[in-house]
Amino acid sequence: TANKKLLVLPGDGIGPEVMREVRRIIEWMDRRRHVSFTLEEGQVGGAALEATGSPCPDETVERALGADAVLFGSVGGPRWDSLPFDKRPELGILRLRKELGLFANLRPAVVLNPLVDASSLKPDLVRGLDLMIVRESTGGIYFGEPRGIETLPNGKRRGVDTEVYTEEEIARVARVAFDLARKRTGRLTSVEKANVMQTGRLWRAVVSEIGKAEYPEVELSHMYADNCAMQLCSRPKQFDVVLASNLFGDLLSDLAAALTGSLGMLPSATLGAPDATGRRHALYEPIHGSAPDIAGKGIANPCAQMLSFAMLLRWSFGMEEDAKLIEAAVEKVLAGGLRTADIMGPGTARVGTSVMGDAILREL
Amino acid sequence: TANKKLLVLPGDGIGPEVMREVRRIIEWMDRRRHVSFTLEEGQVGGAALEATGSPCPDETVERALGADAVLFGSVGGPRWDSLPFDKRPELGILRLRKELGLFANLRPAVVLNPLVDASSLKPDLVRGLDLMIVRESTGGIYFGEPRGIETLPNGKRRGVDTEVYTEEEIARVARVAFDLARKRTGRLTSVEKANVMQTGRLWRAVVSEIGKAEYPEVELSHMYADNCAMQLCSRPKQFDVVLASNLFGDLLSDLAAALTGSLGMLPSATLGAPDATGRRHALYEPIHGSAPDIAGKGIANPCAQMLSFAMLLRWSFGMEEDAKLIEAAVEKVLAGGLRTADIMGPGTARVGTSVMGDAILREL
Ligand SMILES: CC(C)[C@H](C(=O)O)[C@@H](O)C(=O)O
Ligand SMILES: CC(C)[C@H](C(=O)O)[C@@H](O)C(=O)O
Repeated sequence: TANKKLLVLPGDGIGPEVMREVRRIIEWMDRRRHVSFTLEEGQVGGAALEATGSPCPDETVERALGADAVLFGSVGGPRWDSLPFDKRPELGILRLRKELGLFANLRPAVVLNPLVDASSLKPDLVRGLDLMIVRESTGGIYFGEPRGIETLPNGKRRGVDTEVYTEEEIARVARVAFDLARKRTGRLTSVEKANVMQTGRLWRAVVSEIGKAEYPEVELSHMYADNCAMQLCSRPKQFDVVLASNLFGDLLSDLAAALTGSLGMLPSATLGAPDATGRRHALYEPIHGSAPDIAGKGIANPCAQMLSFAMLLRWSFGMEEDAKLIEAAVEKVLAGGLRTADIMGPGTARVGTSVMGDAILREL
Repeated sequence: TANKKLLVLPGDGIGPEVMREVRRIIEWMDRRRHVSFTLEEGQVGGAALEATGSPCPDETVERALGADAVLFGSVGGPRWDSLPFDKRPELGILRLRKELGLFANLRPAVVLNPLVDASSLKPDLVRGLDLMIVRESTGGIYFGEPRGIETLPNGKRRGVDTEVYTEEEIARVARVAFDLARKRTGRLTSVEKANVMQTGRLWRAVVSEIGKAEYPEVELSHMYADNCAMQLCSRPKQFDVVLASNLFGDLLSDLAAALTGSLGMLPSATLGAPDATGRRHALYEPIHGSAPDIAGKGIANPCAQMLSFAMLLRWSFGMEEDAKLIEAAVEKVLAGGLRTADIMGPGTARVGTSVMGDAILREL
C-alpha cells in the first residue's frame, strides 16, 4: 500500500548527500519488502532561504503537516552565519518543531561495540552504553515571552528571555519518557535546577505526581542539571532514560552524544501528540549538523541519516522488523571494518559515503 | 601585620573537617612566614538554619561584608532536602554572592600530573589540562524577575523564570575573563545560545565589542553552549579561558571539573568589583559539595579547601609566593603517592583527612 506519506527535507551541507543513501534504502524496501512510500521533497534551511527568502517557507510547513513523517537532513553553514535572527537556517528546524507540535525530542546515545574506541572516555566506561535523552522541544526558554533586547533610559541595552512551563507541557513529555522507561530497564532520571529555578520546582513536582499516579513501577529519580552533566561524563552507564527541559536537554543530549565519540552515527526523533486515531506528527533527523567543511566531498557518514530513517519506521509506522534490519545491517558493516573518516580507528578501512551506503545495502 | 580580616564559614557535611586542615596552614603561616590574619568564624547552610532559623543569617552577611575575604566550606545535606525554597542551605551561598556583589566565579579545571589516571577520559586527552571557567554569578536566570509558580484559571500550574542581563553585567564579567586570558595563553571562548536566546545575542555582541575596543590582543571566539559541552568532553585541551552566564557556567564548570576526575582537588574563587582603593569582596570555596555520606569519618580530601585558601592568598592579598608554596606542597604530596579515598589509584597509599594535612604541612 502506498499511503505512507513521507516528506524528505535534505537541507544544507552534507544533508543532501547522506539523504541520497536513504533513498536507496527506500528503493530497496519497495523492491524487496513490498513497502511503498509516497515521497515528497521540500526545502528548508539556507537552501530554502536562497530559493524563497525564508529558512522555513509556509509551503514546507504545509507539506510537513500533511505528511505522516518528516525525514530531515541538516541546516546551516558559514554563508548564513551573520544573518539576522529571522533569516537564520536554524529557524527551519525551530519553526517545524513549533508548528507541528513536536514536543518530545528523543535522542539515543548508543555505543556500538565496534566503535567503543571512538569515545574520548575509557572503553570500560562506555562499552554497551545505551541511554535515551527525552528533551522537551516546543517550550521553555526557546519560545517564552517576553523576549528581546531593549535600550534602557541610560542608553544601555538589556536582554530578556523567559522560561515558561505549564503543568500540561511538563506532563505530556514526562509521559513519553515514562513510557520509554517502562519498555526499557524501568529507570527514569528527571533533570532540572529545582534548587534555583521555579520552573525546576514545578518540573520536579509534576514529574513526581505522574510517576506516583500512573507509573508506580518505574524507578524515578531526580537530579540537578549541573550534577547530571558531571555524572554523564564520569559514569554514563548509570543512566537509562533521562528527561529534561528544552534548554537542559539541548546541552545534555549533545554531551551524551559526544560521549559516544561517534556523532556521525546518532539519529533522533521528535514526536507530537497522538490524535484520536493514534496518528502523530513526527520528524527524524541525525544529530550531526550540516558539516559545511566536508560537504560535497563524498566523505560524510550516512549512518545517522539511515538510522534516523529506521527510527521513523519504528515510531511512525510501527515497522519494528524493518527498523531492526537496517540497524543490524549498519552494525554488521561496522563490525566488518568499514569506516567513514569521522569514525576511523586502527585496523579499519576508510570508505566514502556511497561505498558505505553500498555495503549497508548489500548487508540488507 | 594583622589587618587581614578573614571570615571562615565551614558550613555542613565535610566542611568543618576539611576547614580544620586549612586552620593548620594558617597557623603555620603565622609561625613561619610571619603573616597573621584576623580570623572570625560564622554560620551558614543547614548548620546556620538549625542555630538561627536562616541558612544565611544577617549576621553572617554583615561579617562577610566587613571581611577582606571569605573562606567558605560547603552546605547542604539530606536532612534539609525537603525544606521549602527559602530555608534551603543553598540559599546560604546564593545570598552571599548577591549581597556581596560577587559576580565573577572563577573555576579552574586542572589535571595535576599524578592524577591523570583519575579522569574518565583517556590520559592523552587530559594530561596537562589547565582551563579556567569564568561564570557570571549574580545575574541571569538565577535572580531575574518575574519568577514563580502560579495557578491558572483552568486550575493548572505554570512556572516562570526570567533570564535578564544588562550590558554592564555582561561587560564587567567579560573584563575579568579577558584580563585572565591576557595573563594566560591569550585565548578566550565566550559561550551562549545566540542562535536561540536574546540574552545570548546581547552577550555575544557585548563581549565582541569589549574584545575589539579593549583587548585586541586576546584571541576571542564564540561557541554555542551545546557545542561547548560536546567539545569539553571530546577535546578539552582546546580551551584556555571560557566565559559563560550563570546558568551555562553552572553546567559547564561542573562538567569541566568532572573531566579532571578529581573533584576533591578543585578550588574556586568568586569576586566582586574592586572599589577605588582596589579592595574587592571575595569568597573562596571548594567545588565539591558537603558530601554528607562521608562526613565525620575523617576520610574527606582536604586539598580543594586548601587550594581555595591558596586562591584567596593570590586574589585577595596578592600573596602569589605563598599561594604557590601551598600549591606546590599539595602536588608534591600527591607525587609522593599519598591519596585520600576519592582519588585512589593503583600503587598509591590511602590516607585520611588529617594525615593528608600532616603531609602537606611537612612539605611546607
Ligand atoms: C540549531 C539549534 C537551534 C538546535 C537547538 O538548540 O535546539 C540544535 O542545537 C538542536 O539541538 O537541535
Ligand atoms: C548550590 C547551587 C545553588 C549552586 C549553583 O547552582 O550555583 C552550585 O551548584 C554551584 O555551582 O555553586
